[in-house]
Order: sequence, then C-alpha cells, then structure tokens
Amino acid sequence: MKNKNVVTIGGGTGSFTLLSGLKKYPINISAIVSMADDGGSTGILRDELGVLPPGDVRQCLVALSDSSEMLRRLMNYRFEEGGLKGHSFGNLFLSALEKIKGDFSKGVEEAAKILNTKGEVIPVTDKDTKLFMELKNGKILKGEEEINHSQDIQKIGIKKNYLLPEAKANKKAIQRINEADLIIIGPGNHYCSIIPNFLVKGITEAIRKSKAKVVYNCNLVNKAKHTENFTLDDYVDSINDYLGGKRIDYVIYNNKKPSARLIKKYEDHKELLVKFNEKDRTNRNYKIISADILSNRRPKFSASDKLAAQRSFIRHDSEKLAKVLMMILELSDYESIIKKIV
Amino acid sequence: MKNKNVVTIGGGTGSFTLLSGLKKYPINISAIVSMADDGGSTGILRDELGVLPPGDVRQCLVALSDSSEMLRRLMNYRFEEGGLKGHSFGNLFLSALEKIKGDFSKGVEEAAKILNTKGEVIPVTDKDTKLFMELKNGKILKGEEEINHSQDIQKIGIKKNYLLPEAKANKKAIQRINEADLIIIGPGNHYCSIIPNFLVKGITEAIRKSKAKVVYNCNLVNKAKHTENFTLDDYVDSINDYLGGKRIDYVIYNNKKPSARLIKKYEDHKELLVKFNEKDRTNRNYKIISADILSNRRPKFSASDKLAAQRSFIRHDSEKLAKVLMMILELSDYESIIKKIV
Repeated sequence: MKNKNVVTIGGGTGSFTLLSGLKKYPINISAIVSMADDGGSTGILRDELGVLPPGDVRQCLVALSDSSEMLRRLMNYRFEEGGLKGHSFGNLFLSALEKIKGDFSKGVEEAAKILNTKGEVIPVTDKDTKLFMELKNGKILKGEEEINHSQDIQKIGIKKNYLLPEAKANKKAIQRINEADLIIIGPGNHYCSIIPNFLVKGITEAIRKSKAKVVYNCNLVNKAKHTENFTLDDYVDSINDYLGGKRIDYVIYNNKKPSARLIKKYEDHKELLVKFNEKDRTNRNYKIISADILSNRRPKFSASDKLAAQRSFIRHDSEKLAKVLMMILELSDYESIIKKIV
Repeated sequence: MKNKNVVTIGGGTGSFTLLSGLKKYPINISAIVSMADDGGSTGILRDELGVLPPGDVRQCLVALSDSSEMLRRLMNYRFEEGGLKGHSFGNLFLSALEKIKGDFSKGVEEAAKILNTKGEVIPVTDKDTKLFMELKNGKILKGEEEINHSQDIQKIGIKKNYLLPEAKANKKAIQRINEADLIIIGPGNHYCSIIPNFLVKGITEAIRKSKAKVVYNCNLVNKAKHTENFTLDDYVDSINDYLGGKRIDYVIYNNKKPSARLIKKYEDHKELLVKFNEKDRTNRNYKIISADILSNRRPKFSASDKLAAQRSFIRHDSEKLAKVLMMILELSDYESIIKKIV
C-alpha cells in the first residue's frame, strides 16, 4: 500500500512538536514552514547576510531528523558569548548552505540530506518578504518581531494582515498540498506562525481545491493581548476566513487539564487556556476531537534558550498528538483513546 | 594483514593536502594537529568564546572526511558579511561541539563521527596555550599571528620558541606515536605549524622512542623573512634539533620545476624554491627521495578564502605525495616513480 501524504502547515516550536511525533509513522511528510520570522538570531542573519529566515525551518528539520542525538543538539545549540551570542548553530548552518547553493530552498534540501530527515521541509515561499499588521486605528505593525511583542492587537483589533513585498508560494508547497491526503494546520503562534502561511499567494487556493482532509490542532493556551479571549471556535473561524470558509474538517482539542499550579503560572501572564463549550454553537461544520494530548514531561531545552523554556510548560505531547492525527488519517483502530467526538 | 599505523604531524593546508591523499589507502591514520593558531576566525573564536583553535583541526577533518562534497564545502565556507564575516562555518561547528561536550578533544571526536572521517584527528594538546618566539636581540613575538607576519625572524635570528602556559601532550597523541609504523612530519609553515607540535611536552620524547620510520615532507617554497634561504638540509637540521638529532629517516623532495611564470610570481615576494644540492654534504644520515610531487591542478578554494588562494599555486599533489609515502611504508612495487634515492 502506498504511504499516505501528510502536509503540515505552521512554524516554530508547534511544528517541532507535531513533526517529532508524526515522523515515527509510515507516511510521507511535507512540512510547509512560515517564512515571516524576523526576530532574534534569524533577524540578525536576515539583516546582515540577506538570507531568508532559517529559524522555523531549522526546528522542522531537527524534528524530522533521524541523525544522532548529538547532531540534533548541535543544531539547536546557541552561542552564548561574543559576536556570535544568541545565534543558533543550526541557523548558521542553513544560512551557509543558502549562500553556497545560492537559493534557500536548495539549501534546505541539502540540509535535509545531511540531517537525514524523514520527510521534507518546504519554506512556504522563497521570497524575502516581511509580515505587516494594520490595526483598526490605522497603526501599522512592521515585522513579525514587532507584531509578536505588540500589546495593542486584541485591544484595538486587526484590520488586515499582509506580506510586503507580496510573496508567491513555493511551487513544491502547492504540489504537495494538491497531492495531500491530510493537511494539518498548527499548533503555533496564531498571527506570527500560522496566518503568515495563508498570506502567501496560492496557498489558500490550493488548500481549498485539495481533496485532503484538513485538521486544525488548536493551541492549548491563548496569547495575552493577541488572542487573549479566543475560544476554540474563534480560532477555527479566523483560519476558515483565510481559507474561504468551512474548509476545516477536524479540530483537535485538549481535554486534559494541566495542574492548578501551572494554570496559575500562566494566568499570571494573562495566558488563559483555550476554552471550548460544546453548546456555544449548534451546527458546526467541523468535528471536534477532544482528547488528552497534554505533555506530562518536563520540557528539554538548551539552558540558553530561556524564551523557549518559559513558554513551554503547558504544551502538546508529540506522541499523543500524532496518534490522534493518525486516527483521523486511518479512520480505524484508535477509538479507545478518543474521549468524545462532537 | 593488519593495517599499518601512520601518524601525521602538522597543521593547516599542508596537512589538508597530505591527508587528502593518504585517506585513499588501507592504513590507520592519526593526524596530530598543532594548536598554536590564533589568527583570523580562529583567533576571534579563541578570544570571544574561550575555545581552543579549531582552524587546523577543521582542515584535517575535512581532508579525512568521507562525506558528501557538499558537507566538505560547507565546512570550509566562510561568511562574507556582518558580524559573522571571516568566520569559517567549520570553525563554528567545532567551537559549538566543544561547548556542548565541554572538551575540545571530545568535540573533535564527535565532529569526526558526523563527518565520517577515515582516520582520527588529534589536537596535539588540550591546553589553551600560546606560541612565543624570542629573537636574538631579546624581542619577543607573542602569538602565532604575530610570528607569522614578523619581518624580523631571519634577519635577527631566533633564540627560542616556546609555549606559554606550558602544554602537555594529549595522551592519545603519545599513544599513537608509540604505536606508529610511520610518522610523517609536514609539509607546513615551519615555525607556525610544524615546530609548535614539538614544543608540546612529551611529543619529541615519544617520537625519539617510537620504532616508527620518520619521514619529513619538505616544503616546496621558503617563507620570506622566515626561512628565506633555507636548503632542504637546513629544514632537516632544524627539526632534528627538536627531535634530539638524527631522528629523520627519509626526506621527500620535489624535483619537478614549476613553470617559470609561477617561479617568478613567487620570487617577486621573496619566496624562493627550497634548494637541495646533493654535494652540500657527504654523510647525511637520512635518505632523500627526490620525486615529482608537484601539483599540476589549479587550486580550488572558496572565493572568500583569498589568503589560501594566494599562497597555493606551487603546492604538493596529494596523490603523488601519498604514493611516495606508501612506497616508504610498503618498501615495494613503487620504484618506478622514484627518480633517485640519494
């Protein structure tokens, strides 16, 4: 039997978790990755070397890599001193390969070979573009970094998200979406990792036309001042708006509560668990799969990656998540782990 | 039959050429590498990250690597812009591995695994030490970079070369010298790549005691203001002085003249071909193997590695050199390529 084609759409830590779980199954994985990142090590490399943003791609490559643990650790290593401070080694690796090959996507393909990845990583676009957000008061937030740290988004409201210059989708991304059996969106930072993929020309049209089932992995926690009061349905509506309405077939929702201590810790930063109430709506055109997909394990991060460590206590379990997704793909055998399909 | 044990001693481009040829033969290669480098990318990394000098080790690893051409190119890639300008990717790779493993030699071992090297690369010492040269007028040159660029060495004369702080040899280096069938010294920058190995405590004593044959690959060209008028015998004397006298068994000398145009180009910079006159001495206690070991090929270097490109037109052919060395090791079958044994 031919392996099924699974396309993931996202970027950053969310994709890392998702792909780490998926890679253990006999499926063809194509990870489409957002190219809007412009902060931190990635931002410096974009500015100084004129390269495309390597950070999210790196995380996906490492997640899919079948290489030694050491090579994976190396890719995520961050220099802590001198002129290299803050740079992730894997970002330098991708930027050097882009320079050598003269093309980011070709560099990523070489990286995938070296890292022996199970599946391919596809930058959503090869265009050097920037993310913008116009708020309802006319204020324009410039770049992913500024958007990510803005305190105004929920308060003022969004008028429009867009990329400048306009960016056309990587042909291979379109092709993989066309051939997909399953398209998995998220989890990830809603405005900075997920939506930017849909702003690339050709992506939403391809998703609309694809015969694939579309699954949305809902985030566990809302982002303060961004999606602070979002319910599960709000996330779905927001994404469906981009996809031209009613395209999402399944939503995976975590029904396992984190410890009261952790919830409190997050709430102190106005980061509330995403809520879902079955009775909020009567006729949803997407199935909600409510299951325990919460990680019990302490996150493992490089000591220097303080940001990742801070935000990663309440997070998906990659194995549980992959199992639910495989159930959706296979439609069999996995009923026992599902608490409820609404 | 057990493979024979071959130890090379050197550093830099000379070792790269030598090892690139040797790795094609069924022998156990241990490349002992000088750790005195403190210029360029290596110098910055030493200063800023407190790591040991990766440059020479990187060249040896790449030479011995059985990986894809792409991975080898990547290791020698130099960033050309911004804060990373001048850094070789491979140097960052070794520095990151040193940081992760907490030990330079262990980092080098990991690098060798990742790069799938045919043979091992051994830093001559794990001590963070610096090369010094005291001239006959009392002036002290501090560091390999300063020594390498000094215009005074030949003119004033050397009183003493030494390392500070004193450095003890890596145990594995001593062990490999003890077990060696053949020890190959050079080619390489005499005062900056070759001699610094002999300043590390334990190395010369081990070479003296080893049952191995010792071969010296004489340089092709003298270094202006350093070894400007050296003959082949001068180089041998200089090294034998460190080794406690009469330890070198064979010297390989190139008898093929480069083109008049190239010779002129080098002579314009006071870089003269190393001379050898059979009649200079009557009772040498080393055999001189005179053969064509000159490269006909244009050197291939990264466009950004201008230094390497400049100095590399007259250079050893790695295959010819390895063939002569194998002859010495095997003592058979190879007479035809030898023009003369003095």
